[in-house]
Amino acid sequence: MINLSHNLAANIITPRKKDSFKGNYGHVLIVGGNENLGGAVIMNAQAAVQSGAGLVTVATDMSNKTAIHARLPEVMVMDFRQDLTKAVQKADVVLIGSGLGEELSVLQNVFAQINAEQTLIIDGSAITMMAEHNLSLPNAQVVLTPHQMEWQRFGEVPIANQSMEDANWEALVNIKPEPILVLKSSATQVYLEDDMYQLSIGGPYQATGGMGDTLAGMVAGFAAQFKPLGPAVLAAVYCHSAIAEELSKKAYVTLPSKIAEAIPAFMQRLAEETVAKDPVDTKQEE
Amino acid sequence: MINLSHNLAANIITPRKKDSFKGNYGHVLIVGGNENLGGAVIMNAQAAVQSGAGLVTVATDMSNKTAIHARLPEVMVMDFRQDLTKAVQKADVVLIGSGLGEELSVLQNVFAQINAEQTLIIDGSAITMMAEHNLSLPNAQVVLTPHQMEWQRFGEVPIANQSMEDANWEALVNIKPEPILVLKSSATQVYLEDDMYQLSIGGPYQATGGMGDTLAGMVAGFAAQFKPLGPAVLAAVYCHSAIAEELSKKAYVTLPSKIAEAIPAFMQRLAEETVAKDPVDTKQEE
Amino acid sequence: MINLSHNLAANIITPRKKDSFKGNYGHVLIVGGNENLGGAVIMNAQAAVQSGAGLVTVATDMSNKTAIHARLPEVMVMDFRQDLTKAVQKADVVLIGSGLGEELSVLQNVFAQINAEQTLIIDGSAITMMAEHNLSLPNAQVVLTPHQMEWQRFGEVPIANQSMEDANWEALVNIKPEPILVLKSSATQVYLEDDMYQLSIGGPYQATGGMGDTLAGMVAGFAAQFKPLGPAVLAAVYCHSAIAEELSKKAYVTLPSKIAEAIPAFMQRLAEETVAKDPVDTKQEE
Amino acid sequence: MINLSHNLAANIITPRKKDSFKGNYGHVLIVGGNENLGGAVIMNAQAAVQSGAGLVTVATDMSNKTAIHARLPEVMVMDFRQDLTKAVQKADVVLIGSGLGEELSVLQNVFAQINAEQTLIIDGSAITMMAEHNLSLPNAQVVLTPHQMEWQRFGEVPIANQSMEDANWEALVNIKPEPILVLKSSATQVYLEDDMYQLSIGGPYQATGGMGDTLAGMVAGFAAQFKPLGPAVLAAVYCHSAIAEELSKKAYVTLPSKIAEAIPAFMQRLAEETVAKDPVDTKQEE
Repeated sequence: MINLSHNLAANIITPRKKDSFKGNYGHVLIVGGNENLGGAVIMNAQAAVQSGAGLVTVATDMSNKTAIHARLPEVMVMDFRQDLTKAVQKADVVLIGSGLGEELSVLQNVFAQINAEQTLIIDGSAITMMAEHNLSLPNAQVVLTPHQMEWQRFGEVPIANQSMEDANWEALVNIKPEPILVLKSSATQVYLEDDMYQLSIGGPYQATGGMGDTLAGMVAGFAAQFKPLGPAVLAAVYCHSAIAEELSKKAYVTLPSKIAEAIPAFMQRLAEETVAKDPVDTKQEE
Repeated sequence: MINLSHNLAANIITPRKKDSFKGNYGHVLIVGGNENLGGAVIMNAQAAVQSGAGLVTVATDMSNKTAIHARLPEVMVMDFRQDLTKAVQKADVVLIGSGLGEELSVLQNVFAQINAEQTLIIDGSAITMMAEHNLSLPNAQVVLTPHQMEWQRFGEVPIANQSMEDANWEALVNIKPEPILVLKSSATQVYLEDDMYQLSIGGPYQATGGMGDTLAGMVAGFAAQFKPLGPAVLAAVYCHSAIAEELSKKAYVTLPSKIAEAIPAFMQRLAEETVAKDPVDTKQEE
Repeated sequence: MINLSHNLAANIITPRKKDSFKGNYGHVLIVGGNENLGGAVIMNAQAAVQSGAGLVTVATDMSNKTAIHARLPEVMVMDFRQDLTKAVQKADVVLIGSGLGEELSVLQNVFAQINAEQTLIIDGSAITMMAEHNLSLPNAQVVLTPHQMEWQRFGEVPIANQSMEDANWEALVNIKPEPILVLKSSATQVYLEDDMYQLSIGGPYQATGGMGDTLAGMVAGFAAQFKPLGPAVLAAVYCHSAIAEELSKKAYVTLPSKIAEAIPAFMQRLAEETVAKDPVDTKQEE
Repeated sequence: MINLSHNLAANIITPRKKDSFKGNYGHVLIVGGNENLGGAVIMNAQAAVQSGAGLVTVATDMSNKTAIHARLPEVMVMDFRQDLTKAVQKADVVLIGSGLGEELSVLQNVFAQINAEQTLIIDGSAITMMAEHNLSLPNAQVVLTPHQMEWQRFGEVPIANQSMEDANWEALVNIKPEPILVLKSSATQVYLEDDMYQLSIGGPYQATGGMGDTLAGMVAGFAAQFKPLGPAVLAAVYCHSAIAEELSKKAYVTLPSKIAEAIPAFMQRLAEETVAKDPVDTKQEE
């Protein structure tokens, strides 16, 4: 067990290369938001944009378009029921599932298009649908972000056993290709390669609807710009709760949309630490 | 007559338990907002979310969906004309009536589905419709939040007599099951079990449209997370006006949406007082 | 010529009576906003609400509803092409014309419903339509808020002559019932009874689209709560430019929506001056 | 090569004339935003309005209307598929292309209506369509704002050669009428008459989607109010990155919509420098 520490995040969030452009920071495709649950993709997208993804496209039920643009003109919006072949091809990172409801064919279309080089983050309803319909993971760099009930459904680990690290590893060995597992709870854990990382910050001020949608969006935004994937996921999980913890000094609950707004300032402080620690230029790998 | 004091609120708003999750803070179902009055449920929902309800769903005329999500991605939205059976079952607290207009069948559907364990807050147009159509209260934990005209209609106490505590008690004994009555006026009173609580803070800067919708949303948000129901209602009524009073130092009128935004910081200050007063951990009961 | 001074405004914006409620601060009906110009009624309504009107209803092209509620849940919205009889009857103040375009029948309906006790503020396209269709003023307490081109059309005073006070008085004697004229320019003038009031604050940072819509909304909000009408109009005109002047210290242009946001704080400061000047309670007349 | 300096901007952004009105600051027509890319015109419009354009009209796919007004009530909105003859005639500056997608007939309509006195800013998809369909520039005061890929398509200068000033000049001599070229990259250049201006501020915090849409909107807003056109374009390019640089002290990425919000305060500071430098009144030419 490794503590998910500040330094793990600070080592990933380094100053950007001077001559870089938006193409260097990845294109995130967010797929989710049925007619009732459009707020979920708004929170995904706000978090991905504020994290610094180069480009963000949201494929959703088109009745969600206006609310998305009213909050976030920086994103492109498309109908998730149209052919997504090109949209998936253009993406470096695909995040699917927040507020997706029971849109099974949308999920199947994305799974059919994704390739082994791409990062695929699977959240919320997509995890439940995989369990209900016995879907296998596609061949991609997969990150799973279930809450405890979703992990019970898909990983078949009863919630009561999820605090036992071994139970989760046993479930993971049966899932191919082996995903990174972000198991969300009041003590979130990340299972990455052979290590389990334990989050020890954050708190019950985060116990409110939409919190996981913002986390999924941050994972997508971090995965799009920082390499390799594992540390990028760890950094996103850490920063999400670290920001909430800061906001909780002045908020009984820390709303997901407020956490998203605070991302750029938090990341900038971490980037400056890198510079302070290492006077030699420590740029990210391309 | 008991003064509705700061301490009544501070004793309820205690620090959250470390290992809690959103399920511990209740699911609020808000039912209201016809084609013209969608702003009312936006204010309900903003107040409930900012108060810390675990989950909030708004059942409304679907033409209100985009405005709700543009302001508040944290909530789910559904059509209030569809079957609400499952939605009511999943809720811990149902708030019905703000901006509901004359949607009688919506009101009847909710009354038919609610059960005795659930909290039902009845506001605005729902109270008027109950008076006009001679509807009885369903068997639930009921909170009524009328303004003076609505109480005259439903409780049949003329406005001129409403300042007399006895007149209101007389009306209340005829209403079964006995509700908690929040009688809104420039000197709001709460009738709870055998006591009347008098609000002595707040002021005429609150005399603007939508103020009651924000209060109803706070009552719902507090009822969802704090037990028992009576003190939770008292705390919501107190906090609503206490926040307005603070804002009025710098505002001739205190808009409902501004009050909602100020809820998390106000609650956090009260929660810290609890800790200061009582060094032993004073967590809420589950 | 009388200088439109700070004291004229400060004498009107007095502390509210302790036992007042929203009914004491008037119901404003805003009629305007065709399919393309909905922003105008958003600015009207934001200014009226922030000024402290008790209730605000916007009658408009219904395609504007969602944008209005996304910015301002405090207002009610209705279709301006439906029968407005009841809506006009319930209003204390009607503001018509901002962004109304060529919706002549809407204008005629409102003119037919208004009565002599009500305040009617006529702005923008409504003034142009009156000129084009030779409409007379209805019997009401009328405030006209033209810019220079609109006054040339309706008052038939060439722009070149509008700086001559006598030319404007000559036009006004032919208009029955005699309106209050707010003639907007870089040196706005108000013609009220036998006096002309000259605005000597404000500046070219206000030279941007929508500025007049915010002013009209403030006139409506002030007229709804302060009596008599003349001084209320003067105070609104003064405060609008005084706020802009303050904001211009940190803004090359002062956007109308930013002015609206600053209204409650500005009014509160004026209200506190009243208290300071006059230790005896100086409440408004009911 | 001339460094694009602070002084170039400060000399253009002078205090406004006292007796000016919105007609003095130009009418900007923005044409863009298909069904999926409406965010682009929101960012155009927000930047133009905050820069101080007198009036701003957005011609777009009407499904974008509500999101535009929800963010920016100060603008007028119209359908870009209707006849644009009158709209172009009323404009001083037309900005076309951000998020326009493949709406070729809209582009052709605007090109057919524009005249030699008007400023025409061509951005994004419009540049790509000109390349794909071999369209010539219309007879107008043209500003081109391509990113590197768009310039490769339209100017036929391979990206690898674009850092060589001569290669760009060679392409420009073949384009008639000779445009001002704003070639966006991590080291943006402006080709104006016989000089190339090099931007040496800004940085990789700007590497995010929508950055160019905000720049195009600022160019439009500056062109509408400052004369002559060349220095106005230079000032807009400088201010856009100077604001981003300031924000980057507290933001890992500087979102386009945050840059737009910061424009009025930044411009006011430059205007005050002018006053300080030159105690004689240094007003802009009309």
